Amino acid sequence: MVKQQRAARTREALVQAAATAFDCVGYEAASLAQVSKSAGISMGALTFHFPTKDQLAEAVQARGACVTRSAAEKITAEQGRPLRSAIDLTLEVARLLDEDVAVRAAARLTRECPQAATPWTSVWLPAIEALLCRASTDELRPGADPQTVLTLTTHLITGTESYIRRCATLPEQRESAQDQLERVWRVVLPGISRNNAQLD
Amino acid sequence: MVKQQRAARTREALVQAAATAFDCVGYEAASLAQVSKSAGISMGALTFHFPTKDQLAEAVQARGACVTRSAAEKITAEQGRPLRSAIDLTLEVARLLDEDVAVRAAARLTRECPQAATPWTSVWLPAIEALLCRASTDELRPGADPQTVLTLTTHLITGTESYIRRCATLPEQRESAQDQLERVWRVVLPGISRNNAQLD
Repeated sequence: MVKQQRAARTREALVQAAATAFDCVGYEAASLAQVSKSAGISMGALTFHFPTKDQLAEAVQARGACVTRSAAEKITAEQGRPLRSAIDLTLEVARLLDEDVAVRAAARLTRECPQAATPWTSVWLPAIEALLCRASTDELRPGADPQTVLTLTTHLITGTESYIRRCATLPEQRESAQDQLERVWRVVLPGISRNNAQLD
Repeated sequence: MVKQQRAARTREALVQAAATAFDCVGYEAASLAQVSKSAGISMGALTFHFPTKDQLAEAVQARGACVTRSAAEKITAEQGRPLRSAIDLTLEVARLLDEDVAVRAAARLTRECPQAATPWTSVWLPAIEALLCRASTDELRPGADPQTVLTLTTHLITGTESYIRRCATLPEQRESAQDQLERVWRVVLPGISRNNAQLD
């Protein structure tokens, strides 16, 4: 049992160190030797747990996907108004991108390794699509079709991730990604909402 | 004179081949040997014209910046309503990203080599900022401050570039980036415009 716990802790440390590496320099440039060094775990143990770089990247993507999926499930279970829930989910995704290195690494790896088993977008984008379809009759103004609002939403998340990466060297001097995205939604919402809805 | 023309043609072919390489695989992974091969120009001639990879990347960024700057200057000179001009400029940037490999490479290199002499964003983003500031009193609705609309605009261009890259393997099967962005602006515009402006 103690042995199993130790193995789980080793895997955990490796996934964390790998997330930092993939987030910072991407799949190709990430060095397994550097991951092993920064996790304080030997290369032998690394290759025992993750025989290939692909398997390590897969574990990081799974971690980032799991965190994001939990957030999506929590928000979609809340039974609020669908448009508000869709916006709340984007704000939570922005917060996770800002604060969780595995989420940020998963977002990057999904672009760089499109053959991944669990693309990061697949755990939140369909939830937003479903919410926007539910919102369309009562909440979206005529002309604001759900597919175009979904495209807008995707662009806003992509832009948010890019903002975080641009400011990576001075994170304490900038507005949080969630605050910035909320500011953008306040401006955009009157254009897409039928009822002149406001964010609280 | 003939010799100068030949040198100019050689540089032109090298910049074009390098733009394709930087656009596809990024700065780090781009191979000078591959650039030389696909341009049909010897490695000796490549290093004569561009002694370092940095100098070749700089030339590609300068090309992409030059094309984009021309578009920005043309649109800002047109004396239309500032908000409409700002949107027109984003649509032109989307078209250039879709159709001009040097523009796409410049966008990518600006992210990957932030110390570049001419960051690609610096040739169009200040023009949009100036237009939005001019629009703010007459055209933007109260609450839609120019800085937030600028953040929105930046996210839309980032999202547009990401869309082009996601669909790089099947460009003929997708909506053009310009059409997609125009569709998004039609939905967003009523939220930011004071006069309930519509795109024609």
